Amino acid sequence: MDTSNDLQEREIFPKGEEITNEYFRGTAWLQVLVPNDSTLHCPTYNVTFEPGARNNWHKHPGGQILLVTGGRGFYQEEGRPARVLHPGDVVTIRPDVKHWHGAAPDSGLTHIAISTNAELGEAEWLEPVTDEEYSNL
Amino acid sequence: MDTSNDLQEREIFPKGEEITNEYFRGTAWLQVLVPNDSTLHCPTYNVTFEPGARNNWHKHPGGQILLVTGGRGFYQEEGRPARVLHPGDVVTIRPDVKHWHGAAPDSGLTHIAISTNAELGEAEWLEPVTDEEYSNL
Repeated sequence: MDTSNDLQEREIFPKGEEITNEYFRGTAWLQVLVPNDSTLHCPTYNVTFEPGARNNWHKHPGGQILLVTGGRGFYQEEGRPARVLHPGDVVTIRPDVKHWHGAAPDSGLTHIAISTNAELGEAEWLEPVTDEEYSNL
Repeated sequence: MDTSNDLQEREIFPKGEEITNEYFRGTAWLQVLVPNDSTLHCPTYNVTFEPGARNNWHKHPGGQILLVTGGRGFYQEEGRPARVLHPGDVVTIRPDVKHWHGAAPDSGLTHIAISTNAELGEAEWLEPVTDEEYSNL
């Protein structure tokens, strides 16, 4: 079983600060690798989810790319089965596709998150992934 | 000393195919993580340089982000001293800034390369980094 401590020891990019907004359940961490700006339009983050942690359903107006670097977790688009994520997996998320991502119950997850076409606006945050939805994966 | 074999064992993303174009010196490898497309505009690659390998001087009309994941190498912008790269380093390259990147003489280098604003066009490839320039770093 991976724990967040195990993940941290193996990880390349810093874990950053604990995410304290209401769009996440469980404990997750964020390090800004590239801030948003008006030239590259491509803010890039290192995100670490402790076991069981995940974000709410949400959409990105410009899309997103996830590059999984550690642990094990899930990515799910609305109306589709969840995809299990492992290190080396790449997820491309089209604009305005409702989705969530996060750790497995028994493993942390670390991924790089690249916000594509960031000039099109911020993520639209929606309802949480309920414990029932999550436990039924 | 890192060797490309050592790098490969530690690396998260595949090494891909050997780069055979004339814009690289030495041996380098490329794996497409996200292909270019007309929606995300953000092709993303895993690039592995064997010791001594580097690319020519070049410019990206839309800019580029490098996320260093293994080994040791260099990034240099024209007219500036070379920056030594280590795992966890992030390089943001503004549009049309002339630069090169590659491995150290005694270590391989692996980085993720994100082409930002790819709708603005392909890289403009220029002259090689000469052995004299490289050996004087």
